Amino acid sequence: MKIEDLGEFGLIKRLTKILKIKDSSVVVGFGDDCSCVNISGQLVLFTSDIQIEGRHFVKNLISPQDLGWRVVSVNVSDIVACGGKPRWGFISVSVPPELDFEYIEQIYTGMEKACRYYKMDIIGGNTSSSEIIILDLFLTGITERFVPRGGATEGDYILLSGYTGLSRAGMELLKMKKDSYEDFEERLIKNHTTPVARIDIADRINKFASSCIDISDGLAGDLSHILHSSRAKAVLYREKLPVSQDLKSFCRKYSKDCLNYILFGGEDYQLIFTVKEEHISYFSDCFVIGRIEEGSGIFLKEGNNIKKVPEKGYQHL
Amino acid sequence: MKIEDLGEFGLIKRLTKILKIKDSSVVVGFGDDCSCVNISGQLVLFTSDIQIEGRHFVKNLISPQDLGWRVVSVNVSDIVACGGKPRWGFISVSVPPELDFEYIEQIYTGMEKACRYYKMDIIGGNTSSSEIIILDLFLTGITERFVPRGGATEGDYILLSGYTGLSRAGMELLKMKKDSYEDFEERLIKNHTTPVARIDIADRINKFASSCIDISDGLAGDLSHILHSSRAKAVLYREKLPVSQDLKSFCRKYSKDCLNYILFGGEDYQLIFTVKEEHISYFSDCFVIGRIEEGSGIFLKEGNNIKKVPEKGYQHL
Repeated sequence: MKIEDLGEFGLIKRLTKILKIKDSSVVVGFGDDCSCVNISGQLVLFTSDIQIEGRHFVKNLISPQDLGWRVVSVNVSDIVACGGKPRWGFISVSVPPELDFEYIEQIYTGMEKACRYYKMDIIGGNTSSSEIIILDLFLTGITERFVPRGGATEGDYILLSGYTGLSRAGMELLKMKKDSYEDFEERLIKNHTTPVARIDIADRINKFASSCIDISDGLAGDLSHILHSSRAKAVLYREKLPVSQDLKSFCRKYSKDCLNYILFGGEDYQLIFTVKEEHISYFSDCFVIGRIEEGSGIFLKEGNNIKKVPEKGYQHL
Repeated sequence: MKIEDLGEFGLIKRLTKILKIKDSSVVVGFGDDCSCVNISGQLVLFTSDIQIEGRHFVKNLISPQDLGWRVVSVNVSDIVACGGKPRWGFISVSVPPELDFEYIEQIYTGMEKACRYYKMDIIGGNTSSSEIIILDLFLTGITERFVPRGGATEGDYILLSGYTGLSRAGMELLKMKKDSYEDFEERLIKNHTTPVARIDIADRINKFASSCIDISDGLAGDLSHILHSSRAKAVLYREKLPVSQDLKSFCRKYSKDCLNYILFGGEDYQLIFTVKEEHISYFSDCFVIGRIEEGSGIFLKEGNNIKKVPEKGYQHL
């Protein structure tokens, strides 16, 4: 059997069966945005995210500084999604020996900028050579409470920390390789190249979210992970799904369907999370987009009309 | 300037200047076998080591199970070299979608075997797709004392945990792609494909070593890291350098110079460390190969004859 026949999640499921965790200080193992270990009473989160040239980025379409920013941000996003704050990163860099030093220097400058923004440190690393550029960041964080994917219960409200679909639109614009872009197009591209992890709401996620995940695979795809883990159903309200002005302009100009971008565009690094009714007031800067019900699947409600939303997200394999 | 003009260590030196560590809980940052953080009074070690197809291994020359064992062992070796015990690993796996599932299953089986041997757990991971196989393990460990590279002082004895040069001989044998190998050749190959990190002496390293490093770049190359960090000189005794019977057979058969393998062969994952005279008796199973003196450089003493040893090791870039 080929790996592509299993898909990313089928593969992970099979492989993690082999690695049985015996250590009782491991609070969370495989299957969430982060793993979690209790070290002398401190909950420590572990995550990693790799950026491979030609697979996760195209060298000529992203500046090395943005690439450095990006690899830190996507990892911080996982830590925040589990209710934590990033602390100590360890960077694994592989580059072709004939690469200009200035290029990798710029990657590090981008990482340093991100470290300052997120108030964390990269404390060590490993370098080796390869045909292509590979950046793999391992990031730890600390938290007082692990916010899992599987904590959503009936009646919880579903919240979204910001607009989605922008990164995908930005990626498509980049690939058009136009000589010049309109202002809104530049902004969409920036959403793709330099995502910002929502560390600004980390404390509130830690205190109030019953479940949380970051949007790397798309709103529907990532929400479905919450639903599978929580054994629950989501009803989203069509008119509550936020549509950014820039995405509207993009969809008008290129005759695209906004909803498709909002639900299935990936790599936004916004958070989708659930909260109890009494905690909604703490999130006035976020969008309430639906509710958790008993059952399974994602449904979209528009007036009296309800339809099932496919759970497809970007599959990285 | 190209990266290859800087070399691995020149590159690391330049890059780590960009990432200044601000967090006072970081005990050791860049420049040793591991980084080290104080988490609620517990010293936690961080390391990582990547295995890239075509660069660190050739797919047809190593079994996937051995590859899984190897990626764990080389990381454990770094933890032990800093006086620690391995605890929690996080694995980043990138594979071509058309790869057979059984191949990656075997890699995981090898990792699981290693986890059991070293009494540690891999607690999470990240999978993605790529053209080639990439395995990147991040490993944390715990220790009561960080054993640094830079702790050797005048009068310390230099000890070696086992034979060196075997892995390099094994690699050369593998590359000959012979139809059949003699028994001693099979053993040398095994030294290369399935190195065993010296966890068996981890407790004694923690208690008694004034400095320590594991041998990935070759005895001379890695000893020179201890000397640079400790600002010291090493005098090695030619007749005390251990030569394994298998390496002797190899060098006789293929007309090679044993000393070249012993000093400059890499990837043995033995430990080279220094101890005070009063602690030597705890290491009767190791080889005392020389002493630390004031000065710099590595010198080889044979009778009354002393000559300088070049510090070249395998440079991974």
